[in-house]
Amino acid sequence: MSEIREVPVGVSARHIHLTQEHIEILFGAGAGLTVLKPLSQPGQFAANETVAVHGPKGSFAKVRILGPARKATQLEVSRTDAFSLGLNPPVRESGKIDGTPGIRIVGPAGEVTVEQGVIVAARHIHFHTSDAERWGIRDKQLLKVRVGGERGVVFENVIARVSDQFALDMHIDTDEGNAAGVATGDKGEIVG
Amino acid sequence: MSEIREVPVGVSARHIHLTQEHIEILFGAGAGLTVLKPLSQPGQFAANETVAVHGPKGSFAKVRILGPARKATQLEVSRTDAFSLGLNPPVRESGKIDGTPGIRIVGPAGEVTVEQGVIVAARHIHFHTSDAERWGIRDKQLLKVRVGGERGVVFENVIARVSDQFALDMHIDTDEGNAAGVATGDKGEIVG
Repeated sequence: MSEIREVPVGVSARHIHLTQEHIEILFGAGAGLTVLKPLSQPGQFAANETVAVHGPKGSFAKVRILGPARKATQLEVSRTDAFSLGLNPPVRESGKIDGTPGIRIVGPAGEVTVEQGVIVAARHIHFHTSDAERWGIRDKQLLKVRVGGERGVVFENVIARVSDQFALDMHIDTDEGNAAGVATGDKGEIVG
Repeated sequence: MSEIREVPVGVSARHIHLTQEHIEILFGAGAGLTVLKPLSQPGQFAANETVAVHGPKGSFAKVRILGPARKATQLEVSRTDAFSLGLNPPVRESGKIDGTPGIRIVGPAGEVTVEQGVIVAARHIHFHTSDAERWGIRDKQLLKVRVGGERGVVFENVIARVSDQFALDMHIDTDEGNAAGVATGDKGEIVG
């Protein structure tokens, strides 16, 4: 492979996805999310709205909601955040929340306690189908990605997610970004 | 190199080293540190004593002191901790504190504000001279260390520190431990 397979890196802070039902419990009947700014993946956005989340040991007062509404409510935190909350969530792909810890979520109009939904997101790369084909990468393939610099790291087990709805972007959490000394907008290279 | 070069990993939480002068300001004239538990390096220990540290944006109420007393006071935090404090310390080897941010330190008997001394510790491995000789490693050499598992990572730029006063141990901070899914007592392998 002679072409350098370079990917932009996005560092995800803790955030939450909500169902429409939960949005209306937390923000009022008929409420919807409003767009603060678009994200790298087409149609996805950071909402103006935030919620508080309360774990057994600690809370976060303002957790950003990412829209649009989803089929299941899901809180994504770093391992550091998880210790603060007093939870021990598994590392999971987005959407795979069976058997994960629950959380109490409080909004301006109400609150909801979910029985599951807290994960530490598994690092992954979104590939548009055309990127994946050009680079010979299959959906679900586990990749190695190097980010250089003073705290250079090779991340293993980076999950490839391929869709014609995706834009090329690697997602890591704040622990991973801090450990590697990288911030959103930096680049990684697929090395294996 | 046929032998596997395996090293125990120690994940360091935020901690502080103090001069004897600062110990006496913070804990009273004639005060000394008392041993809570010995650390991996001979003669080093976690003290029973803790201090509060206050940055421009945030504080930590109980920061463990590591003894014995040193020539310069030094606070070691993760990048995550640094954001909480509102500081932007560089990644540095222990002891290299020129030009680093200062911090206000409060103990039961007094307080002291240092003009410099806050670092994010550069990851490193302590080698006893005999380990280094057996494995062909020089003091100050930059190594690559792999830790496997679900969040497997290869850490680059791991600084070798070789002394006949050291015991074999790799030190990373909590961001690095969390990013790699490793805890104290896990193993890493020198791969380059």
